[in-house]
Amino acid sequence: MPSPSAQFSLTIRVQIADRPGMLGAVASAIGRVGASIGSIDLVEVQDGVLLRDITVDASDMEHWGRIVGALDDLDGVTVIDTIDRTFRMHVGGKIEQHNKSPLKTRADLSMAYTPGVARVCEAIAADPDKAFQYTIKRNTVAVVSDGTAVLGLGDIGPRAAMPVMEGKAMLFKEFANVDAFPICVDTKDPDEIVELVVNIAPGFGGINLEDISAPRCFEIEERLKARLDIPVFHDDQHGTAIVTLAALLNACRLMGKRLEDLHVLVIGLGAAGVAVTKILMVAGVRHIVGADSRGVLSTRRPDYEDGSMPPIKRWYAEATNPERLSGTPADVIDGMDLLIGLSGARVFPPQALARMNDDAMVFAMANPTPEVSPEEAAPYVRIMATGRSDYPNQINNVLAFPGIFRGALDVRAPQITEPMKMAAARAIAGIVPESELREDYIIPSVFNRDVAPAVAAAVSAEARRAGDNRAGDTIGFAALDIEQLRS
Amino acid sequence: MPSPSAQFSLTIRVQIADRPGMLGAVASAIGRVGASIGSIDLVEVQDGVLLRDITVDASDMEHWGRIVGALDDLDGVTVIDTIDRTFRMHVGGKIEQHNKSPLKTRADLSMAYTPGVARVCEAIAADPDKAFQYTIKRNTVAVVSDGTAVLGLGDIGPRAAMPVMEGKAMLFKEFANVDAFPICVDTKDPDEIVELVVNIAPGFGGINLEDISAPRCFEIEERLKARLDIPVFHDDQHGTAIVTLAALLNACRLMGKRLEDLHVLVIGLGAAGVAVTKILMVAGVRHIVGADSRGVLSTRRPDYEDGSMPPIKRWYAEATNPERLSGTPADVIDGMDLLIGLSGARVFPPQALARMNDDAMVFAMANPTPEVSPEEAAPYVRIMATGRSDYPNQINNVLAFPGIFRGALDVRAPQITEPMKMAAARAIAGIVPESELREDYIIPSVFNRDVAPAVAAAVSAEARRAGDNRAGDTIGFAALDIEQLRS
Repeated sequence: MPSPSAQFSLTIRVQIADRPGMLGAVASAIGRVGASIGSIDLVEVQDGVLLRDITVDASDMEHWGRIVGALDDLDGVTVIDTIDRTFRMHVGGKIEQHNKSPLKTRADLSMAYTPGVARVCEAIAADPDKAFQYTIKRNTVAVVSDGTAVLGLGDIGPRAAMPVMEGKAMLFKEFANVDAFPICVDTKDPDEIVELVVNIAPGFGGINLEDISAPRCFEIEERLKARLDIPVFHDDQHGTAIVTLAALLNACRLMGKRLEDLHVLVIGLGAAGVAVTKILMVAGVRHIVGADSRGVLSTRRPDYEDGSMPPIKRWYAEATNPERLSGTPADVIDGMDLLIGLSGARVFPPQALARMNDDAMVFAMANPTPEVSPEEAAPYVRIMATGRSDYPNQINNVLAFPGIFRGALDVRAPQITEPMKMAAARAIAGIVPESELREDYIIPSVFNRDVAPAVAAAVSAEARRAGDNRAGDTIGFAALDIEQLRS
Repeated sequence: MPSPSAQFSLTIRVQIADRPGMLGAVASAIGRVGASIGSIDLVEVQDGVLLRDITVDASDMEHWGRIVGALDDLDGVTVIDTIDRTFRMHVGGKIEQHNKSPLKTRADLSMAYTPGVARVCEAIAADPDKAFQYTIKRNTVAVVSDGTAVLGLGDIGPRAAMPVMEGKAMLFKEFANVDAFPICVDTKDPDEIVELVVNIAPGFGGINLEDISAPRCFEIEERLKARLDIPVFHDDQHGTAIVTLAALLNACRLMGKRLEDLHVLVIGLGAAGVAVTKILMVAGVRHIVGADSRGVLSTRRPDYEDGSMPPIKRWYAEATNPERLSGTPADVIDGMDLLIGLSGARVFPPQALARMNDDAMVFAMANPTPEVSPEEAAPYVRIMATGRSDYPNQINNVLAFPGIFRGALDVRAPQITEPMKMAAARAIAGIVPESELREDYIIPSVFNRDVAPAVAAAVSAEARRAGDNRAGDTIGFAALDIEQLRS
């Protein structure tokens, strides 16, 4: 049974007889079935009876039934009602719109709306770049998904993808004060998605593509980057890549290794696997072998030779694995320094890890169940990282995307370049002081509030260095040219 | 010179010598050039000098120069800086996104985002209607414009239209707690706009079309209504129509007239003119004559006969003006009870109003300059209404759209029907008690906080009556079936 967690948090309203020892009995009953109590609130005191709300973390939904059963069995206790706290948090959605200034008087209305707004419209019509100055474009990112590759759930469609995109918008706001808005599209056609995003772009300062299945995600991103003058960033690719590189930079720092010398095996060549490989190559890693569900990729594989391999994997086969190794991932693990998993639960046999080099590293990021569990890998590896919050070294995109868009918006960067991604990775890695680096602390916590500002600063500095700073002369203020007024 | 207003509000920072009578001299100088002082703030006391911010309402931008000049001329006064308050209010845009619950702990994250969010996604994937329950769709309206007919400014494009759409979103929030988000699209092609709106609809509970030029707006709205199961409402048409009808209902109530008996001349047959005509017909008005820039519309007009008249106007010519009157609006004003202007500044000669029936009504709604000014119309009319806030009887859409969408969202209505629009008009009219009805009070103030709730109640009641209430079984709560847990 997995350990109890807040994702299965349940509030149980119980009527408890008002006599000594009852609350203790309730708490013991909950403890006996393995649930953990979060809070106990008194709702009402009735005649001889107390009404309480008890919030418990459970392991899964089946566990809820056993908790309620255990309480039902107690003499003097009646379960009245239960509330699934995760669903309750979602009622009506998780984000809302706020007005930044009041709209209470005619003066407010005549400045924020007609007739005063017309002057602002005219200023933007005369100089469209002023949209960054006088509209929400300055600080707003569209989180765009077609719902085809949502979490581990697959193609669940745009409606069902909304809670994830709203959650993403919350993270943007919480960690980097970026206003993000979810746009879930009811089409899977890349042409339609590209046209749609190009057409809604006037109101946005950036586009975060999310949970769009491979290989369509590559094409959509490339075409949008070519057509838009605002950043387009597919987080499943680049967010994952940046945070993975950050973890690797610190792991190498800790062990005194050089990226150039590493031998890396990547399992899983979807959006994330391809992007991680690319950023490692940009960072200087020279020895990479990739494997998908059909085995290790090379120019010797039959689907390469017969031309049936899709373009992105053809590129991959040509750009990696110069020795043209073949077989299963376990067949090629000998002499590897780093195993990166971006595939599925338990796809790699733990014992094979014994054949890796000394000081082996495993980043097993399949969620919720990694390619190899930390417990099973422990005998063979020096550094272990996963995507999970309940083990050390969590590699989580939230370390990257809020700060990256914050930095890009701050300078109105037209794009997120490779050097900006590298700068972000170095900034994330740099949050862990050299003196605190340990095998189980190579990456900062997702709740470390220093990360996003550091990433934003690094990203905007790199954009400025490259001349991608468009914020220059108009970001300032609504001041008038007083000499012009006097003339 | 127009009277000073907040749309030309200016904050002037002045250094004033610290000696008796100086502030009075400053105030007098501002008064002499015809500006009105809104506020005077003390910013800093320096050695012998006071730094003050003086906020003034002016008539126009040229007026600002004269105000600054008048202050410059004063001995002991130096103007340091000026700020255009309308532009300042727009810096960075006027709306922002907020998170409805905190995201401070791992427990928060595991309920609002991964892994807990996956259960919510799965629930919606299994029953897409649950999107209304667990996402922002419940309360969110897209304000969609292509920027082709913005205010009186015309085709200024999507970027320049954003300040108006943000202002609209503010009004939705302020008056009806509807979350609205501006989508300004970079295409004028009706096919592309229709596909785009259909494709983004999963995340929205309603679509408010705005400032799209005629006749494209008619086609876009009709096609979207046919394809979507959420309300689609072109405010420039129906908002104007509803509020106009509300004003007319009260005018008739005051004067004891019946809609059936009225003779009405409509000048201006764009989106608003056509929609006003339609709602008057639905309400029972039988005698309507319309005129566009080429004169009075009839089946006898050459462009009708030669087939060059566009479809919407062909319909208009056939549905109105049975006497087949022709000429200019002034040529056909004899015997009219109501003149409705939705065209342009000063297009109607005031003296011609003398030929209207007794108890004549003029609703001259061109903005900012009406078809006939209230001053010029005064000798000839009993009831005068305009679109302006500085005359009595302001016919303003903000009386309608917030409450209409509030009512529709409350019952998850799939559409805004004609009876819902009629109910809205009656609700707006009903806000003015019979005992308070006067020639200069036939329509409530835009700041009357009773209007939107009354409109919402009337609209949702009508939807329920018609069976368009889909909120029924799922709007309630995140409660679990406790018997299922026990089983």
